[in-house]
Amino acid sequence: MNHRTDTSVTVIGLGLMGRALAGAFLKAGHPTTVWNRTPAKADRLVAEGARQAPTAGDALRASPLTIICLTDYQAVHELLGASEAALDGTTLVNLTSGTSAQARETARWAGKRGARYLDGAIMAVPPAIGTDEAVILHSGPQADFEAHRPTLGALGTVTHLGADHGLASLYDTAGLAMMWSVLNAWLQGTALLRTAGVDAATYAPFAQQIATGVAGWLPGYAEQIDSGSFPAEVSALETDARAMAHLIEESEAAGVNAELPRLIKAMADRSIAAGHGAEQYPVLIEEFGRPRGD
Amino acid sequence: MNHRTDTSVTVIGLGLMGRALAGAFLKAGHPTTVWNRTPAKADRLVAEGARQAPTAGDALRASPLTIICLTDYQAVHELLGASEAALDGTTLVNLTSGTSAQARETARWAGKRGARYLDGAIMAVPPAIGTDEAVILHSGPQADFEAHRPTLGALGTVTHLGADHGLASLYDTAGLAMMWSVLNAWLQGTALLRTAGVDAATYAPFAQQIATGVAGWLPGYAEQIDSGSFPAEVSALETDARAMAHLIEESEAAGVNAELPRLIKAMADRSIAAGHGAEQYPVLIEEFGRPRGD
Repeated sequence: MNHRTDTSVTVIGLGLMGRALAGAFLKAGHPTTVWNRTPAKADRLVAEGARQAPTAGDALRASPLTIICLTDYQAVHELLGASEAALDGTTLVNLTSGTSAQARETARWAGKRGARYLDGAIMAVPPAIGTDEAVILHSGPQADFEAHRPTLGALGTVTHLGADHGLASLYDTAGLAMMWSVLNAWLQGTALLRTAGVDAATYAPFAQQIATGVAGWLPGYAEQIDSGSFPAEVSALETDARAMAHLIEESEAAGVNAELPRLIKAMADRSIAAGHGAEQYPVLIEEFGRPRGD
Repeated sequence: MNHRTDTSVTVIGLGLMGRALAGAFLKAGHPTTVWNRTPAKADRLVAEGARQAPTAGDALRASPLTIICLTDYQAVHELLGASEAALDGTTLVNLTSGTSAQARETARWAGKRGARYLDGAIMAVPPAIGTDEAVILHSGPQADFEAHRPTLGALGTVTHLGADHGLASLYDTAGLAMMWSVLNAWLQGTALLRTAGVDAATYAPFAQQIATGVAGWLPGYAEQIDSGSFPAEVSALETDARAMAHLIEESEAAGVNAELPRLIKAMADRSIAAGHGAEQYPVLIEEFGRPRGD
C-alpha cells in the first residue's frame, strides 16, 4: 500500500480505543490532532507528538479527516451538534459502537451539514490497533472510503462493505453473535465434559476442530439459502433433531444448563412442523428470518 | 499404520451407515461377516465379498470383533439379549447413537456376559467412511481399543478418548452442539444481513473467518476455566453485554428472530448479576454448569 504519511488526521474521543487509534496514526507518521472532553486523557499522546486542539471544533477543522470514537451515538450527536459550523467539507469516520439505524441517521444528519460520513466498526481490542490483526469495517460512499483508505490503513486491515451506512454495524453485530455462539457452545460442551472428569484444556482442541470444520461449510450452505433450495445432501433436519434430543437429555442428566440445547431443538422442531424435516439444516433460515422472541 | 488385513470382522446393522462400515472393511481386505434383520440389505455387500451369517449369534461368533450400528440402544439390547450365548470372549464396538448413560449401562451389561465392550461415535456421513475425514471416537478400556486399532483404522481416523464408556457419546453430543451453534449464529447473521440486501454468499466468508478466529481462542480460554480465574485480559463481560443489547435491538428492528440474541444476553446478565461483570467471558462456565431450562 502506498502509505502517504503527510496527511493530517484528527481523533476525537480518547478512551482506551481512541488513544490506541491516535497512537497508531502517530506511529505511522501522520500529523495527528486529538481532542477529548477530559483533556488529561491526551497527555501521553501529546508527549508522543500529538497536537491537542483546544475545542472539538478546532479539532474538526485541523484535518480533512476526523475519526470519532465515543461511548455511544448520543455522545456523538452532542459533540457534533455543538460544533456544526466545523462540519462543512470535512470527512467523518465514526467508529463508535451502535446500531445500523443510528449509523444511517447520523449519516443523514452529517450530510445535511456538508460533511462526508463513513460509519465503521472495530473488530479488535485496543492493543491490536495498528497491526494487520485489527479488522476495521467501513460502510458509506465508496469514493469517500477510497479517498482516505491510505490513512485509515494505519489502523489495521480496513474493509469497505458497501454504500449503506448501516452495514458496518450489521456485520459487526452478526460477527459478535458468531463469537458468543462459538463461546457458548464450547461452554456447554465443557460443562458437560467436566461432569465426566474431562478438563477444559482437554476438550478445547476438539471444540476448536469442530468449529473450524463447520465454519468451512458456510460458503456452500450459503448457496442453498441464495437459491432457496435445501436438498438433504449431507443429512436431513429430522436426523439432527433426534441428536438434539440427546443433547437435552445429556445436559439434564449431567445437571448442567439446558436452555441452549432446548432453543436449538425448538428452532429445528418448528421447521420440521412446517414440513422441512427432510431438507437440510440451512432451511432454518426461514425460522431465523421471522420475528420471534420479543 | 501396520494394517493386518487377515483379521476377520463382523458388522451387525446394515442401514446406510452400517453398509458403509462393512464396505470399508471389505475394501481394506478384511474377511467381513454381516448380519441384518432384513437380510436383503446385505445383497450388495455379499456381491462385494462379504459373508452373510444366518443368525445374529452366528455373526457374533464369526469374528473376534463385532461392530454394531443400529437405530438406537433399545435395538442393541434386543439383539444382544437374544444372542447372549455368543457374547463370551468376543469384543463389541457399539457405534449406535445414544447417550453416555446408555453407553455405560450397555458396557456393564456386556461385561457381565463376558464380552469386551467399546462404545463409539461416528462424526461423519456414510460417504466419508473409509477416508481420513471420517472421525470415529471410542471410549472404554484402552487395551481393548489398542488390540483392535489396526482393524478399526480401516473406517477412518480413530481416536480413544478414555476408559469411561460414556465419553464417546459426550464428545459427540458436545461437538454437535458446536455444529448447530455455528450454523445458528450464521443463520442469525444471514437473516440480519439479508434485510439490508446482503446475500448469504456475500456474508458467509466473513462468518467463517470469525468462527475460525474465535475457535482459536478456546485453548487459551480453557486455561482460565481450569484455573478458575477469569481476568479480563481482552474484554470484560459487561462490555459484551452492551453489544448484546445491540444484537437484540438490530434483530427486532430488522424483524428477524430474536430468541438466540435474548438467550445470549440472559446468560451474560445472570453472570453479571452474580458479580462477574468485570471478568472475562469464560466465567460464564458457572452459568452453563448449573441446571436450568428444564
